[in-house]
Amino acid sequence: MRGPPCPPAMKAFQDTYPDELAHCFGCGRLNAEGHHLRSFWDGEETAARFTPKPFHLAVPGFVNGGLLASLIDCHATGTAAAAAGRAAGVEAGNGPLPRFVTASLRVDYLRPTPLGPELDLRGRTASVSDRKVVVNVTVAANGEVTVRGEVVCVRLPESMRPPGGFGVNTR
Amino acid sequence: MRGPPCPPAMKAFQDTYPDELAHCFGCGRLNAEGHHLRSFWDGEETAARFTPKPFHLAVPGFVNGGLLASLIDCHATGTAAAAAGRAAGVEAGNGPLPRFVTASLRVDYLRPTPLGPELDLRGRTASVSDRKVVVNVTVAANGEVTVRGEVVCVRLPESMRPPGGFGVNTR
Repeated sequence: MRGPPCPPAMKAFQDTYPDELAHCFGCGRLNAEGHHLRSFWDGEETAARFTPKPFHLAVPGFVNGGLLASLIDCHATGTAAAAAGRAAGVEAGNGPLPRFVTASLRVDYLRPTPLGPELDLRGRTASVSDRKVVVNVTVAANGEVTVRGEVVCVRLPESMRPPGGFGVNTR
Repeated sequence: MRGPPCPPAMKAFQDTYPDELAHCFGCGRLNAEGHHLRSFWDGEETAARFTPKPFHLAVPGFVNGGLLASLIDCHATGTAAAAAGRAAGVEAGNGPLPRFVTASLRVDYLRPTPLGPELDLRGRTASVSDRKVVVNVTVAANGEVTVRGEVVCVRLPESMRPPGGFGVNTR
């Protein structure tokens, strides 16, 4: 197991979204009821850690597959933002990252994911362009990969942008 | 739009699971924090209705993709249980349905799903065997399909069964 990729002072990709785009149920810092997933670079990979709550179960002892899909989804769109930003010379922390949403999601549940241990999500980009990023994600528990995902992310379409445009990040 | 498929007195597929298997975050009747999705036959299709909460958003005005994946997942495993049960002569309400879990999930987000209206989920089986059921699911809002899913469901493996075996349904 590698060490924690996310010291508290480091800025997560999701921390760079403007306030209007920071309410996502999976990763929005401004969603009081959400999962608050936070993703970071770890070398060429991206990483996020998440400890499911006791009620995030499928059957007793195992993590819910819908939650796992949700974590993969948000880690992938965050990875897409960071990778497209990096390709354009912008790093999380020194400028606004572009916002991506999911066009398609595929998740393979290789084995049951035990409920209890912290989960280790890892992302790698398969392709990066300004408009579309494909991200492969793994989820591991106790050092063993239990789930794999492939996510096609696309730039936030005009139809989903806030009518008033983007504002500032007040974080 | 067809009429509501789920009069209150009707038993949902998920209502037939034994208590030990009724804690799923997406559809377990005994999970106080969960989404409580309930699925029913509607002719040859299966149907479920769900109204996302205000905090179930992706960006303002649109439903979170992870939640949509989770709803599709639970509607599909419920459909698999009902279809495998029906193939063996068991209907929800007159006997225990077999319990299925997800082997793989594919979700295509065709267009943004507006947050506010009740969502209409529909399931159709592409193949049914005792061990494996493939289910195609659509999600519609305001009569328009916004998301499509394909879910490969498999019988609950031994490794996920409660150590004491299944008990009764106390509902």
